[in-house]
Amino acid sequence: MERMDFAAMLAAVREKAPLVQCITNIVTVNDCANILLAAGASATMAHHPLEVADAVAGVQALVLNLGAVGDREAMLIAGKEANRLGVPVIFDPVAAGFTGLRRETARKLLEEVQFAVIRGNASEIRSLTEDKEGGSGVDVAQADAVTESGLPQAAELARTLSKRTEAAVTLSGAVDVIAQGERVLFLRNGSPTMARITGSGCMLSALTGAFCGASPDKPFEAAAAAAASIALAGERAEELRLKKETGNATFRIDLIDSVFNLTEEQLIQGVRYEVYQG
Amino acid sequence: MERMDFAAMLAAVREKAPLVQCITNIVTVNDCANILLAAGASATMAHHPLEVADAVAGVQALVLNLGAVGDREAMLIAGKEANRLGVPVIFDPVAAGFTGLRRETARKLLEEVQFAVIRGNASEIRSLTEDKEGGSGVDVAQADAVTESGLPQAAELARTLSKRTEAAVTLSGAVDVIAQGERVLFLRNGSPTMARITGSGCMLSALTGAFCGASPDKPFEAAAAAAASIALAGERAEELRLKKETGNATFRIDLIDSVFNLTEEQLIQGVRYEVYQG
Amino acid sequence: MERMDFAAMLAAVREKAPLVQCITNIVTVNDCANILLAAGASATMAHHPLEVADAVAGVQALVLNLGAVGDREAMLIAGKEANRLGVPVIFDPVAAGFTGLRRETARKLLEEVQFAVIRGNASEIRSLTEDKEGGSGVDVAQADAVTESGLPQAAELARTLSKRTEAAVTLSGAVDVIAQGERVLFLRNGSPTMARITGSGCMLSALTGAFCGASPDKPFEAAAAAAASIALAGERAEELRLKKETGNATFRIDLIDSVFNLTEEQLIQGVRYEVYQG
Repeated sequence: MERMDFAAMLAAVREKAPLVQCITNIVTVNDCANILLAAGASATMAHHPLEVADAVAGVQALVLNLGAVGDREAMLIAGKEANRLGVPVIFDPVAAGFTGLRRETARKLLEEVQFAVIRGNASEIRSLTEDKEGGSGVDVAQADAVTESGLPQAAELARTLSKRTEAAVTLSGAVDVIAQGERVLFLRNGSPTMARITGSGCMLSALTGAFCGASPDKPFEAAAAAAASIALAGERAEELRLKKETGNATFRIDLIDSVFNLTEEQLIQGVRYEVYQG
Repeated sequence: MERMDFAAMLAAVREKAPLVQCITNIVTVNDCANILLAAGASATMAHHPLEVADAVAGVQALVLNLGAVGDREAMLIAGKEANRLGVPVIFDPVAAGFTGLRRETARKLLEEVQFAVIRGNASEIRSLTEDKEGGSGVDVAQADAVTESGLPQAAELARTLSKRTEAAVTLSGAVDVIAQGERVLFLRNGSPTMARITGSGCMLSALTGAFCGASPDKPFEAAAAAAASIALAGERAEELRLKKETGNATFRIDLIDSVFNLTEEQLIQGVRYEVYQG
Repeated sequence: MERMDFAAMLAAVREKAPLVQCITNIVTVNDCANILLAAGASATMAHHPLEVADAVAGVQALVLNLGAVGDREAMLIAGKEANRLGVPVIFDPVAAGFTGLRRETARKLLEEVQFAVIRGNASEIRSLTEDKEGGSGVDVAQADAVTESGLPQAAELARTLSKRTEAAVTLSGAVDVIAQGERVLFLRNGSPTMARITGSGCMLSALTGAFCGASPDKPFEAAAAAAASIALAGERAEELRLKKETGNATFRIDLIDSVFNLTEEQLIQGVRYEVYQG
């Protein structure tokens, strides 16, 4: 596997300023829009079933967030239209195993839409892979939390879903696992406070849309660069939180600011990744 | 009445990290999730009528916010299921007297769901008690604002609703009144800027869910401890606002941060309450 | 044209504290509520078709935001009721040219509701005037961006829509153009970072509601004073951003704070406007 050029991926986002459409939940929709703007992308959150096909025709990437399960009709219409037009589609299976409605909607989306990237925590990825109950709400189940010793299993889980769906897969956790087919990357950036705000995952999925929109032929690299960018921003925000003795609300603001101010240099110097050889 | 052990209630939230489900309005849903995370609880905002019963089965408390009046079907399903499972339910009658739809929905919820705590401003509590028009939108009507001389009336209002509904009642204002049956507590913490942000009330209701989820057998103490926690956080945020010469937006951030950083010690030292003997 | 008294308009908002109802999109609804509170107004975001007529009866201004296109039935009911009661109605045609559903909804709203002020970017105003496709999502199309040399055309565009609709028109851009019939004002305040957050436009429309609610007989002056207020707040937030080396998320907070802290004096001293004589 060649060396990852994260900086080039970030530069592409800023140069092309892709318009990213998110059909996403009411909780974090504002954060998703603002992090897209922070990265240099543009955002539309159009989600009405009667307009999403029109909207998709004008965007460079589409993000479907299962938290917006009430918009599942719009997600299906938009996803299929995006496939028809060659617009990359990202899937965030928020709390996929939490309720029957989510399991069923996730299954239908995976059947009818070809995704470029699927991004979730270990419980959500497991739920898609095993199609069974799991996860405690929007959080990862304790049994699923990615630990150092559990990394090989997490890699296998991501690989399995990737092979089955032909999508790149980002399995987020203390270590992020990015897979496409047999290729697997471990990414060792981030901060613990990301789990103390709502929307860390949603924002990463939105950002993955921005990176895919700028580099539509490289979903694996886009997924990895998006994960690296927000994780590095999280480290910077954590540093500020400790220094200023603030809390999770300021952390969220500093996280978005840090994406706004992230330089290619910082990304090159700060990223800690390794190719998984197992 | 024994001495209130607010610190123990806060410790329980942090130890048990209850998962709180909020069916709440689009305006403040993000703030509610973040303040739950700040307190050490976890949050799910699942609100689709086809999934709320599933979701309730996995949570430790349920918060129904009348601002989400469009989700009234989901609120009824979730509320009844929570009652069946013994999950405590909190009701926030946002702007209950403002429109016919809200009055009717509030009446139906009170008929069909047994609440552990009802939390509103004086106009909202009055509206539930008298089942008539009142309140100017989401704000308390001037005639209803809790003043020192009006405290006995506010106490009676809260008692009346508590006895009728068998719920603890938090009547929020410059002085918070917490009642359960004949028991009444006055809480003299808080800051005037809380009325200059949207979501102070919604966040307190969400937080009340966290405290009830951690201590399901003590709704009165949970309601009081939640009110004390956010009020003390408001005092800290007010201090910062005056010092930094900021405004309501920074205040909102500092409020959530202050819940994140609130210590049992601060709660013990800062809380100013008295048992109403009238 | 007499000298504009922006300070008197701001003073009226703070004195009368108008209650403003926004039927607005899920992305920026929280920001709209908080900027209304920052300005000294009050906010209700009631948007259910079964309650908006009731709500309108209690408010001083109504803001309809096309981003909430799913609430178009509620927008029509509320708009017509507001007209019947003499409550000023503001229209924000978010991304009006982006999809067929938005074009059709905008056309219907313009046919059935008399607006006091219409506020959009150049692409949106053009879309309403020419009733054809345009705009890239929620952002202004590059061809439509208001430049110094294009100001006369922007003025004509705003005049055309104003004459056709009998509403005052705010065309937002690097220079804001405010028109009513033949009267045109150019406003040269603001900051480039306003385009890097979501909600700058929505917040201005909400604020325009506050100013119209306080001065219902002066829609042109209200529109201009609202635009001046947020633009000056944007300048202050920009100053802070550069000084503190923050990003768009902190900018958004500082923008709302700066409206909170805006003084009549600052408004008088800082505003840069000119009457267009063309």
